[in-house]
Amino acid sequence: MEQLKQQIREHGIVLSAQVLKVDAFLNHQIDPALMQRIGAEFARRFAGQDIDKVVTIEVSGIAPALMTALALGVPLVFARKQQSLTLTGPLLTARVYSFTKQVESTIGIAASHLAAGERVLIVDDFLAHGQAAQGLISIVRQAGAEVAGIGIVIEKSFQPGRAELEQLGYRVESLARIASLEGGEVRFVD
Amino acid sequence: MEQLKQQIREHGIVLSAQVLKVDAFLNHQIDPALMQRIGAEFARRFAGQDIDKVVTIEVSGIAPALMTALALGVPLVFARKQQSLTLTGPLLTARVYSFTKQVESTIGIAASHLAAGERVLIVDDFLAHGQAAQGLISIVRQAGAEVAGIGIVIEKSFQPGRAELEQLGYRVESLARIASLEGGEVRFVD
Repeated sequence: MEQLKQQIREHGIVLSAQVLKVDAFLNHQIDPALMQRIGAEFARRFAGQDIDKVVTIEVSGIAPALMTALALGVPLVFARKQQSLTLTGPLLTARVYSFTKQVESTIGIAASHLAAGERVLIVDDFLAHGQAAQGLISIVRQAGAEVAGIGIVIEKSFQPGRAELEQLGYRVESLARIASLEGGEVRFVD
Repeated sequence: MEQLKQQIREHGIVLSAQVLKVDAFLNHQIDPALMQRIGAEFARRFAGQDIDKVVTIEVSGIAPALMTALALGVPLVFARKQQSLTLTGPLLTARVYSFTKQVESTIGIAASHLAAGERVLIVDDFLAHGQAAQGLISIVRQAGAEVAGIGIVIEKSFQPGRAELEQLGYRVESLARIASLEGGEVRFVD
């Protein structure tokens, strides 16, 4: 998606060979028009997949996932990272390790918001090691629902997330694929 | 906003005389079409206010605030509740006490994402004691920006948040105003 790559080139900040900061338009300040185009693009790529629900994880997945759900005309559910006072009743959970933050945490979705047989599109802002995506897949499967695909805004293609998800049989669509952040420079795949 | 009240009546769960659970369409599962209408309604109410930016706080403020920013054609910035690894550089912060969770936390926005003179619309999912709104006001003012108004999805009118914000001179627009949750029943103002 050219417009996204352009934003990354102009406003992305390479913090290290592993970490790209996109706080200017995705993770802290958000460009709503770009999110709308991202949502439309995921809806286009997964058209005909009979998606019933979009699932993401708080916090930074919410904006692109919301716009995708709007474009598809389906509800969004976001997995929570910490127990909320109003999150009562049976929970589907998974343990997720964050390489960026170097902590393991539990993510959860109320069982009442995922139904057996539903076709779920997982959307997230980043794909690196694929831990968050695998946690969401686990939760969707615990509900007896089906993962129809995985939509990623920015993929770090030099990390193993995509390969592992594809090996498990999942279709991964990434709107920007980063080949390398070496030398403080963003190089895209292709 | 009648459609929002209807969703609250149909899907809201009264957990106590103080706590309303709206996990079915706002705080966990999200209804994107409803969020779009909420965004359009805030844009209508604050039309002519020359809004430069929408500001909210993670997590549950993001969806309605994103749709409001999209409708107004301006960026959204959300305050973060915990230090993120990529959140570097000068931060504007405020201490916020949550009566629901009974913890005090620090919220922050990178100084680079708020500019002096900007007219800011604050949007949040709930208004109760007004602590989150007051924290956001403090951050906006630290940046030398101006609070042009406060848009709230659900106001608990039996708690003092609105009165205190109005006393400080701010315009508060709430789309659903709850007079009471006593007896497990939602009663609206009017």
